[in-house]
Amino acid sequence: MSAVVVVGVGMIPFGRHPEMTVAGMGADAARLALRDAGISPQHVGMGFFGNVLAGRLFGDATIGQNALWDVGIHRIPIVNVENACTSGSTAFVLACDAVAAGQVDVAIAVGSEKLFVPDVGLINSGETELDTQLGLVAPASFGLRAVRHMAEFGTTRAQLAQVAVKNRLHAARNPLAQFRNPMSLEEVLGSPMIVDPLTRLQCCPNADGAAAAIVCSERVARTLPRAAVKVEAAALCSGDYESPQDLARWGTDYRGCRLAYERAGIGPEDLDLVECHDAFTISEILHYEALGLCGPGDGGRLVDEGATQLGGRVPVNPSGGLLSRGHPPGATGLAQVFEVVTQLRGEAGSRQVEGARVGLAHCMGGDKAADTKSCTVLVLSA
Amino acid sequence: MSAVVVVGVGMIPFGRHPEMTVAGMGADAARLALRDAGISPQHVGMGFFGNVLAGRLFGDATIGQNALWDVGIHRIPIVNVENACTSGSTAFVLACDAVAAGQVDVAIAVGSEKLFVPDVGLINSGETELDTQLGLVAPASFGLRAVRHMAEFGTTRAQLAQVAVKNRLHAARNPLAQFRNPMSLEEVLGSPMIVDPLTRLQCCPNADGAAAAIVCSERVARTLPRAAVKVEAAALCSGDYESPQDLARWGTDYRGCRLAYERAGIGPEDLDLVECHDAFTISEILHYEALGLCGPGDGGRLVDEGATQLGGRVPVNPSGGLLSRGHPPGATGLAQVFEVVTQLRGEAGSRQVEGARVGLAHCMGGDKAADTKSCTVLVLSA
Repeated sequence: MSAVVVVGVGMIPFGRHPEMTVAGMGADAARLALRDAGISPQHVGMGFFGNVLAGRLFGDATIGQNALWDVGIHRIPIVNVENACTSGSTAFVLACDAVAAGQVDVAIAVGSEKLFVPDVGLINSGETELDTQLGLVAPASFGLRAVRHMAEFGTTRAQLAQVAVKNRLHAARNPLAQFRNPMSLEEVLGSPMIVDPLTRLQCCPNADGAAAAIVCSERVARTLPRAAVKVEAAALCSGDYESPQDLARWGTDYRGCRLAYERAGIGPEDLDLVECHDAFTISEILHYEALGLCGPGDGGRLVDEGATQLGGRVPVNPSGGLLSRGHPPGATGLAQVFEVVTQLRGEAGSRQVEGARVGLAHCMGGDKAADTKSCTVLVLSA
Repeated sequence: MSAVVVVGVGMIPFGRHPEMTVAGMGADAARLALRDAGISPQHVGMGFFGNVLAGRLFGDATIGQNALWDVGIHRIPIVNVENACTSGSTAFVLACDAVAAGQVDVAIAVGSEKLFVPDVGLINSGETELDTQLGLVAPASFGLRAVRHMAEFGTTRAQLAQVAVKNRLHAARNPLAQFRNPMSLEEVLGSPMIVDPLTRLQCCPNADGAAAAIVCSERVARTLPRAAVKVEAAALCSGDYESPQDLARWGTDYRGCRLAYERAGIGPEDLDLVECHDAFTISEILHYEALGLCGPGDGGRLVDEGATQLGGRVPVNPSGGLLSRGHPPGATGLAQVFEVVTQLRGEAGSRQVEGARVGLAHCMGGDKAADTKSCTVLVLSA
């Protein structure tokens, strides 16, 4: 396997885009990534497109082909990838794999999703699962995790809410984020209860959005104008359904993080910044622990002492995260790549993590009581 | 890239399975493939799952993880692939790529689909395409191709219908095919008109079904009980939308076939059998020509003279093809692999192609006036 680098990223502002299609948003993100890389469409050898709902909402079974056609990318192998909330990051992993294997010199990964459409209904990840049918939809399963974490480790409601406050502070500095108005701890705690202890401002919002990244071999990167960002690890794994899990300790999460650290040859102490899958405030706290940013059970205290805020020891979700940047599932994984690459290039403006050299992007999809279905962990370096 | 072989295949009978879920059918096919390979679930290093409609019909965004969990395959990277009618064969291509790259020693590709469900509606492949909105749904676009082929090359209605008659004759010998009762030319021509000149028996039927294949490195194959079938080529390409196409000559089809022949280092004269994407009778005739089984325009005469029938020069669709085996889009590509592997092993019973050493499986997905969206061409050898 040879080295893979990111040479271009693109992202459209997340939010409401009633005038745009899934394909159109994906095409826009792809164009931005191509322009950023200084590469023309005909140099792209393979394409991966992450999306969850195009088939369901628009009956579109070749969304990636349609989106990339508009950009001038055609004839090449194109694969549509659907892995719940890790769809975009799985597309990125496959693009890296294709380049690492020497299959192609240049590959594009695009993610796009529209959630502001009528009758979306519930995004599910298991037609036959009794727990879902009985009411264990996503917010409920995360509520259970929060209750367990509070009971076991003394995590407080204020610590949970602090995650949302911090990420909104970061989003205020990110022009592409969906929600940028700062909010107080009181506002977060006082917003309507969804599933106790998670209030509405502790659940990630619906959003429309798209993001893209172009990866290539080091040989090709040397011919391009921008400094390349190296992919140190691109790990994908699935859930472990062998035994009932500990709700305050996510097996898949720990396994995915360990895999990425091993491949990258680094540890949590080497990270300058992290983008993680804060679908709910409790998620980010659990991810701190799986990533080894603190010990098991210490996640609530970590956010409370400011360690994961911009200016802290290891800023987490400088983009605003899912909670404030917004969460179009097919696009989220690539929006994380966009943020990490932007930070490692030193181009993140007022939210820049000073001297950032190593960043990590972490995504999970399809949570159930049984376990999470899919997890991706990417490590990038300047 | 190192050599890749198929060591196990599995397929459930295609037809109506109201009692089964998409995940359940996929799990059954995966179990059959594992048993066939003589391999246990924990030796599988990566999984690819082809499906089109689970997200749309059941809101399931992690169908592959759910199906493989039931089989005892978990923790590993699993990717859900959606590429219209090439979803299953794209899953197979990615599984081959992962093994060829040395990423894993063993990978599984599964395809599963349910079409006998209420309110499927139209399977589309372009939300924004004006031609579809104006009525150019799949049967209509294939009707146009047939009319053009008849006008240009003198292809007759009887020649078109002969494709359906031949494939039903083959299906009569395939216990896994959906429709096995022989039918006459008169019956095919006399069935209700769908889009002139295509009558109902010239359009592939809806079906529920699943199929799977296990691929691995030659090193691992040597430790397994069954003789390995070698993957000589696994090509995937997308449409060319640069110029309006000739309706009687499918650019993507020609390109996909050429790519596969180049990679395999063979030509059409080396093929002992072909499984091709006979979604409509005219499709098979066009594929003959793209595959070089005859010259451009000669496809109608080729089927008429019996060259593509069992016992003929190069039997095409000995399984019965989409027209008689049935066409659950996510599963079709892997059902083709099942048939080719079964033939190359000399285990096809009364439909066995004598002395078959080289077989080809060809799939296309997402046809539009503009062009086809996706094409896979696989070459396997005993």
